[in-house]
Amino acid sequence: MNADTPRAAALIALDWGTSSLRAYRMDAHGAVLDTRHLPWGIMRLPSPPADGAAPAASASGFELAFEQACGDWLRAAPGLPVIACGMVGSAQGWAEAAYLDLPADPGAIGARLTEVDTRRGATLRIIPGLLQRHGLPNVIRGEETQVVGVVDSYPDAVDDLLVGLPGTHCKWVRVRDGRIVEFDTFMTGEVYAALRGHTILGRTMADPALPDDAAFERGLEVAGSALGAGGVLSTIFSTRALGLIGQLSADAQPDYLSGLLIGHEVSALRTLLDARGMPARIVLCGDQDLCRRYARALGRFGLATPTLAAEATQRGLWRLAVSAGLAKPA
Amino acid sequence: MNADTPRAAALIALDWGTSSLRAYRMDAHGAVLDTRHLPWGIMRLPSPPADGAAPAASASGFELAFEQACGDWLRAAPGLPVIACGMVGSAQGWAEAAYLDLPADPGAIGARLTEVDTRRGATLRIIPGLLQRHGLPNVIRGEETQVVGVVDSYPDAVDDLLVGLPGTHCKWVRVRDGRIVEFDTFMTGEVYAALRGHTILGRTMADPALPDDAAFERGLEVAGSALGAGGVLSTIFSTRALGLIGQLSADAQPDYLSGLLIGHEVSALRTLLDARGMPARIVLCGDQDLCRRYARALGRFGLATPTLAAEATQRGLWRLAVSAGLAKPA
Repeated sequence: MNADTPRAAALIALDWGTSSLRAYRMDAHGAVLDTRHLPWGIMRLPSPPADGAAPAASASGFELAFEQACGDWLRAAPGLPVIACGMVGSAQGWAEAAYLDLPADPGAIGARLTEVDTRRGATLRIIPGLLQRHGLPNVIRGEETQVVGVVDSYPDAVDDLLVGLPGTHCKWVRVRDGRIVEFDTFMTGEVYAALRGHTILGRTMADPALPDDAAFERGLEVAGSALGAGGVLSTIFSTRALGLIGQLSADAQPDYLSGLLIGHEVSALRTLLDARGMPARIVLCGDQDLCRRYARALGRFGLATPTLAAEATQRGLWRLAVSAGLAKPA
Repeated sequence: MNADTPRAAALIALDWGTSSLRAYRMDAHGAVLDTRHLPWGIMRLPSPPADGAAPAASASGFELAFEQACGDWLRAAPGLPVIACGMVGSAQGWAEAAYLDLPADPGAIGARLTEVDTRRGATLRIIPGLLQRHGLPNVIRGEETQVVGVVDSYPDAVDDLLVGLPGTHCKWVRVRDGRIVEFDTFMTGEVYAALRGHTILGRTMADPALPDDAAFERGLEVAGSALGAGGVLSTIFSTRALGLIGQLSADAQPDYLSGLLIGHEVSALRTLLDARGMPARIVLCGDQDLCRRYARALGRFGLATPTLAAEATQRGLWRLAVSAGLAKPA
């Protein structure tokens, strides 16, 4: 269609999580040529057809998803390297990619890829997660790749950087001298969903037409004031109590609860950072509305105004493929 | 059947909550003559038969449950007074019994019963819940009756008493000079169930054959140590992380999580009490195993060894019926 010579693909990169699969075809500069978004997370893989020759049972869902994600790209360029990050490397994934100990830098991570031979002959290389053994043990899988992408975007700030990755589980990852040295996990997003969907708090809630910033701020305020001294297990009940006495409308309750939870999270983060030392820069990476909420919370608790990172996963996948020698930048 | 003269009934008392209904027939000393335990909580009332004359739709489930709970007792002694506490007086109950402001003593509570005329002619009198307006608003409904029962059991300690009522929502109620002056709610039990049933934490758990006290203590320890500084939204993820690296077995995870949650609750309670002043005595009231756990947590966080109260609801119902002039003690 296009008169220009199409740019040649140099890498296929997969961001393969629990609930979805994103596939990127990249050129030799790491620029994305094509993107696909498929619903085939590792917990909801496609089923093989019931008729015909039975395929190898265990991996067939992964094989089918892989084929849909990049089968045609590999037919068009059979030798293309394929790299993947995320839960595809977990114990419930296609092949377990063992956790790597901290501190970890892109070179160390890229040197520890786990290889999977696919039925179509291509080799899938899975990026390891990271394991923190000191303090309370902690793990990340997928976010290490986003952090590598952020580090690649801010080469001047990697002396001392804190990367926040809000979502189902919010991760706060500390980078010093270009290496991931420490991280914390807060289950804020998943706890919010569980409280809303499966406790009495959800019963009196209604969806607001638009995000209710005032209700969110009110939740932050409570979490950060003397009223929050009872902790999150206690303050969340005020969502219901305020509603019962007519001081919080049904459609303000979801964002108030969100403010409470994110407020308690960032309040605790502030305590941890007071003990560990403030980072020179904070970068947030994730859903835009959620990052906006976290930015307000960081401000409320006296932390630095964050920078918002874009396309961190793509950049991280590319950077690690280069580290591993799979891709050679033009 | 019995040669002795049966003791005469003086009161019917109902403990009518969200998921069950307990009915007590009491004599003129407040002693329980009969007890019934029915599954007819206000959220799961019996359905009227589909055939025959249509009964008044809205109250019919309540009427049917009421009939099963005490219809025969009322036939045998038509003039018996009937009192009830719990969610039967909520907006979703049979009739809304308005919340009473703090401070509240048994006299004030007994003076504010809400009357419901039942189809069979008897009047049901419902005990109000309590509303705390200072600080974060807070409500109790049903627990006020248990606290009145505890106060009745410890007449020498009511100068300064803290009553803990563990359960779905754990309430900590402060009594000074015989009056309820303050309380806190922690949604610990319901949060535990939601985390176990509806988050990733439940996926790696197995039920232990017996309660795992060591795992529970380990959770308490984490919540109370420097490792707990990230707060409960953070420490709960260690249930999974410890499991992933083989340091916490599947069947130790439920009690470890329980220890974390109760530990964070009691740690926050300790902070609140440091600001408000320690009570002279702590009494726990509720499920025996749960009270045992809370007693260990109180000890771990340097709070007083609690006394365990029994039959607080029955005693409270009796005491409030007497306050209201419904029952006259022999």
